[in-house]
Amino acid sequence: MDAYDKVTGRAKFTDDLCPKPCLEAKVLHSTIANGVVTAIDTSEAEKIEGVVGVWTCFDVPDIQFGTAGHPWSTRQSHQDIQDRKLLNARVRCYGDNIAAVVAEDTVAADRALRAIKVTYDEYPPCLDTESALHPGKTGELHQERPDNVIAHMDLRSKVRGERYQSIEQILDDPSLHHITQHSATPRQSQVHIESCTSWCKMENGRITCVTSTQIPHIVRRIIAQALGIGWGQVKVIKPYIGGGFGNKQDVLFEPLNAWLCMQVGGRPVRLELSREEVFFATRSRQPKTFDVEAAYDDHQNLVARHCVAYSNQGGYASHGNALVANSVNSFRQLYDMRELASRVEATTFYSNQITAGAMRAYGVPEGNWAAECLMGDIAYDQGWDGCDFRLNNAMTKGYVDEFWPGKLACYTDGLRECVRRGKADIGWDQKRAEYAHQEGPIRHGIGVALFSYKTAVAALSLETASARMILNQDGSVMMELGATEIGQGADTIFSQMAAQAIGIPTEWVHVVSTQNTDTSPYDSGAYASRQTYVSGTAVRMVGEELGEKIVAYAHEMRPDAGDLRLVDGRIVDAAGEQVLSLEEVAQESYYSLDHAQQLFAEDTAQVKSNTFALGCCFVDLTVDVPLCKVTLDRVVEYHDSGMIMNPRTAEQQVHGGIAQSLGMALSEELLTDPASGRILNPNLLDYKIPTAMDLPDLEAGFVETYDPTGPYGNKALGECPCIPAAPAVRDAILNATGVKFYEAPMTPQRLFEGFKREGLI
Amino acid sequence: MDAYDKVTGRAKFTDDLCPKPCLEAKVLHSTIANGVVTAIDTSEAEKIEGVVGVWTCFDVPDIQFGTAGHPWSTRQSHQDIQDRKLLNARVRCYGDNIAAVVAEDTVAADRALRAIKVTYDEYPPCLDTESALHPGKTGELHQERPDNVIAHMDLRSKVRGERYQSIEQILDDPSLHHITQHSATPRQSQVHIESCTSWCKMENGRITCVTSTQIPHIVRRIIAQALGIGWGQVKVIKPYIGGGFGNKQDVLFEPLNAWLCMQVGGRPVRLELSREEVFFATRSRQPKTFDVEAAYDDHQNLVARHCVAYSNQGGYASHGNALVANSVNSFRQLYDMRELASRVEATTFYSNQITAGAMRAYGVPEGNWAAECLMGDIAYDQGWDGCDFRLNNAMTKGYVDEFWPGKLACYTDGLRECVRRGKADIGWDQKRAEYAHQEGPIRHGIGVALFSYKTAVAALSLETASARMILNQDGSVMMELGATEIGQGADTIFSQMAAQAIGIPTEWVHVVSTQNTDTSPYDSGAYASRQTYVSGTAVRMVGEELGEKIVAYAHEMRPDAGDLRLVDGRIVDAAGEQVLSLEEVAQESYYSLDHAQQLFAEDTAQVKSNTFALGCCFVDLTVDVPLCKVTLDRVVEYHDSGMIMNPRTAEQQVHGGIAQSLGMALSEELLTDPASGRILNPNLLDYKIPTAMDLPDLEAGFVETYDPTGPYGNKALGECPCIPAAPAVRDAILNATGVKFYEAPMTPQRLFEGFKREGLI
Repeated sequence: MDAYDKVTGRAKFTDDLCPKPCLEAKVLHSTIANGVVTAIDTSEAEKIEGVVGVWTCFDVPDIQFGTAGHPWSTRQSHQDIQDRKLLNARVRCYGDNIAAVVAEDTVAADRALRAIKVTYDEYPPCLDTESALHPGKTGELHQERPDNVIAHMDLRSKVRGERYQSIEQILDDPSLHHITQHSATPRQSQVHIESCTSWCKMENGRITCVTSTQIPHIVRRIIAQALGIGWGQVKVIKPYIGGGFGNKQDVLFEPLNAWLCMQVGGRPVRLELSREEVFFATRSRQPKTFDVEAAYDDHQNLVARHCVAYSNQGGYASHGNALVANSVNSFRQLYDMRELASRVEATTFYSNQITAGAMRAYGVPEGNWAAECLMGDIAYDQGWDGCDFRLNNAMTKGYVDEFWPGKLACYTDGLRECVRRGKADIGWDQKRAEYAHQEGPIRHGIGVALFSYKTAVAALSLETASARMILNQDGSVMMELGATEIGQGADTIFSQMAAQAIGIPTEWVHVVSTQNTDTSPYDSGAYASRQTYVSGTAVRMVGEELGEKIVAYAHEMRPDAGDLRLVDGRIVDAAGEQVLSLEEVAQESYYSLDHAQQLFAEDTAQVKSNTFALGCCFVDLTVDVPLCKVTLDRVVEYHDSGMIMNPRTAEQQVHGGIAQSLGMALSEELLTDPASGRILNPNLLDYKIPTAMDLPDLEAGFVETYDPTGPYGNKALGECPCIPAAPAVRDAILNATGVKFYEAPMTPQRLFEGFKREGLI
Repeated sequence: MDAYDKVTGRAKFTDDLCPKPCLEAKVLHSTIANGVVTAIDTSEAEKIEGVVGVWTCFDVPDIQFGTAGHPWSTRQSHQDIQDRKLLNARVRCYGDNIAAVVAEDTVAADRALRAIKVTYDEYPPCLDTESALHPGKTGELHQERPDNVIAHMDLRSKVRGERYQSIEQILDDPSLHHITQHSATPRQSQVHIESCTSWCKMENGRITCVTSTQIPHIVRRIIAQALGIGWGQVKVIKPYIGGGFGNKQDVLFEPLNAWLCMQVGGRPVRLELSREEVFFATRSRQPKTFDVEAAYDDHQNLVARHCVAYSNQGGYASHGNALVANSVNSFRQLYDMRELASRVEATTFYSNQITAGAMRAYGVPEGNWAAECLMGDIAYDQGWDGCDFRLNNAMTKGYVDEFWPGKLACYTDGLRECVRRGKADIGWDQKRAEYAHQEGPIRHGIGVALFSYKTAVAALSLETASARMILNQDGSVMMELGATEIGQGADTIFSQMAAQAIGIPTEWVHVVSTQNTDTSPYDSGAYASRQTYVSGTAVRMVGEELGEKIVAYAHEMRPDAGDLRLVDGRIVDAAGEQVLSLEEVAQESYYSLDHAQQLFAEDTAQVKSNTFALGCCFVDLTVDVPLCKVTLDRVVEYHDSGMIMNPRTAEQQVHGGIAQSLGMALSEELLTDPASGRILNPNLLDYKIPTAMDLPDLEAGFVETYDPTGPYGNKALGECPCIPAAPAVRDAILNATGVKFYEAPMTPQRLFEGFKREGLI
């Protein structure tokens, strides 16, 4: 529904709405990764014409706050680590925010930044796992956590069956096959089109922040927490946004922008990051490592797995341990059907790397990489069919996560059909046979990966969504949600859902696309593929409630007409004959001299269930061994996301997700200078995302099942496509060359090292 | 609550919010008052650089619509006369809208206007009552009403008592005193500071109109009606506005602006009127005449009154007969306590004068002028004390309007106390004695006038108001209303009312001051002094509902705490001890893992009762007879408006209203050239409103009574102060000079003619 406006430029984004002229804020970032700011001389900067003011880490409120866009709850354990200030004197990563300038224009602001003189006490940076976990005095980044460990999770399943007492016993059993692996995933950047940008102003003593965010209501909370003011003193407005992919699920510069606005008497202040700043001063997918040990039997059954994961979080906790916990849980869940025991451990630690955070699929692509490296190697080593072996162990309908009994389960069985169709489409059996014995420089490979992805954040965290619907005088309905359109097509899907729930044509539903925390019903926002599932539940509930109110009012108008229903915008009787048009009911409800009542419905849905979306990806590719170059020939992906709400937008989601996963597979990695901790490639020339030229036609298919926990049988789709393509590429390269890679991305450099090690070149 | 932002310039008005650059629309007005546009040549205009397009009366949709900001209802008789198009080929008044230009800037737009060549078939204008009511062929302005009569009302009371059979019999009874009068009131202009301005854009196929209006939801309706589109296709936004005084209770240029925006593909188009256009191309108070015949006895009792009023509406019906009906009803009601019979007639007719409409107090100042000319003359002729005679006949508690039994009554008895205090303040008895026998050129006079004003528009018309309140996480409450802040302090009053209803401090209530018809609850807007009464009823109802929901949630949190109440932002038990803070309840309601539910309340109040506000004005003045100059020495006004919600804003309302009434008394009149129908003084040099230099300190007092029909014992105040000062000045001039004036304003010219006629000069 927003396509036309976006294509024609009519759609308004944060910066379009900024009053001009507007004061411009710029942030001074540290040029060291570890140390302490001992002094800042702003005197020269303040003399520059057009500079309104300079504020440093010594001026800001002494309030620690966390930035993660988590739903929060009144339970303490659901509240994020509060480990930073608006500007920080203790520098924990390269590019840390240490001062800010407000000026009449960007030229003056930039000149002022260059004129600020900072004196540091610099320490050697702790960048890798080893140095970060053994910090010494100068590597202790936060006093509260001297060992730099943010959190550690250790989930041991119950040991199933009678034969073994412990997982260690299984992993030591010589009658089983054993395998160990060390795999790793890269620091990937979200690379949304629109920068991180916001602007603030004051009205009636309250602060308004217009920002490009996925989570306006959470921005409200975090601004208030960071500034130590009442949450109701903050109004956050979210217009259309140009992508987020998890980076805008952190609240990074809005609190500083709000505070700077207050320092200049409430005049509008804009704070827009450059592309370079987005790369190094916002969030990215953490680099993670996985040490996996597994045992399996001769009958293609996994018997036990143990996974130890580390996540290098960087200077600040942000989303904490939630991401890598999600990695190892997804590692465990997908192939947990037959194994007798599992143990997953996840540790997140501070370092002087730049701070990481959420990125599409929130840790699952990393865990899935580890899981599929394991499955691919076993199948390869044993000569088993990769699809058969995976399906033999993969989640089926009825699977219940033993750690969240009754709350997290698999309710559909579309995965097998996904694999069946994917195999048929890609020509799995023929290609496997065809590619069996290849020699020479150019080799073909076919690979597969499966995935599971739990929907939303229940039962681990709070899941609520609210909706409001108002009947207009012409029978159309205005829907207001706290759930956000972030380019994924949410508004379109919600209007379809509302139309069905109310009983009117989809075109009669108007969605208020812009969230305003003063007035939009509460919803925590767009992340975790939660909105069609959780917010959709609210939409259905409220839509049905509005429909009932409409029918009740129609009864008042035609008390003798018997049973009435609202069908396709018409009030019909038991025989299906139209008794009233919806417009007639609407007009009467607004303008009756007897009983005028604006018909509306509003409610909050709290969702406590959770379900798994599943799917698979097949990749057919060509490897030019001497050139260490991979050419993707076909990518076919199938999804069991329950019922598909809109096939066209669903397909677009899958295309985008595959592209991001292929970037992780082959090219995307933010590189850190090991001496300074500086990001080496914070630009789109050196950080390579796949473009249309790099991709084959992407093929997306859906196996529609009805998930009983979703409002319309639906479940997660938004993030799923970002998961399986990378390991499927890895599996195809293994098929083509017999070389096992464990580190993504599989750049030409890594391919070269692997091929050389295995004697191919 | 908005004072600081308005004083500092932070408050945003319509034009502040307009995106720049924006296309500029300008309207071509007719240069004749009566005739037909036979051709328009736009070719030269279209060649001008920067002109985007020119549209004429031959291009617009063939849809007739009405502009009045009436509440409307589904009952046909409540729907206004639809007698104009966006641009009109049949020219009915000087300055009629016949073409429009859209250009890249105002310079190009102005040049284009001058380059348009119009050919008219011109007719002689019908400007006065006589020629308008005997129109002939070329004076027939609307085919549907060949006699130019828009409507005629004739209300005959039942004849009370046994003695007379009819009012005619009373008026013929030689045993009574008889008096006849012809009085007249002028065309007054509202003179709001901010011009009539709007701008439109399209989003997602829908039209957005940001406009300076009193009545956003009615603007939505009328744009949709004028354009023939679904009402839900229109979004109207009302920011802060710089005054309206009834002129912005008509929907004049918004529909044209919306249509022009659609013609240019939805690009933003602004349409701002010049001050001159506001004077001649928007609305004004109609000139009215009153022919009054009355009989009274020796005991200071009115026995019967007959009033025949005519209202010269101009080219289009706008508010129709409602204004002059209000005039004669108020004439009747105020002094209807003892008389045995009354008859009031009101006729509104089309003419080639500019179109009139609503202005503060909506016809009552005119009817009150006629009523007080009558009362003043009788008291003067008989030598009765003006206060005693008036009070002897004036409305008291218990008065019921016989035409709306049970729905329109007087519930308080503050008027007598108002007069008592006013007399004491001004020194009535001493001054009357002191001024009794004056001679010479400089004379002093003291005068009085009483008034009544019914609150809101029930039971004549629909009265509904909706409110929505949301509990924020910090215990503050966000209130959203369709009722509008138009400079009168509504937001402040509503926040006080909400705070009391909920049980929190006033500072905890945040009001969404900007209405957006997509999302703001339905309310017909600011007019008829209805908002504290009708919208206030909704605020109280919804506030109490929210309070109950909060207490119910607190019960869930502390089930063992017994009876709980919300007092001053704290949840207290039966002993008054705090059990929970409101913030604790709010946080839990948003973020409970067990039961998360955003607490809100929303509802519509339909008000079917009505009540009278009453009051009086005393004026002490000096007349320089040879110079025909009146100097106001003191103005004292007392109001019984029930309970006063905010003494400071109430006093400010009274000051402003007195000033407008004094303008009507002495200087304000839009003058028409009798040959062409052109307005002669459409500017602030030639149209004289009183400035601070022209006014003495204005003294306002309140007699607080509790009106049982108002939400907090309150009733109308906003318009009342605009009523009695003019006739009180007239009464004081009569007291000073013995000369009876019947036409307002009493300009030096009119004073000269009167003094000369009576031989004073």
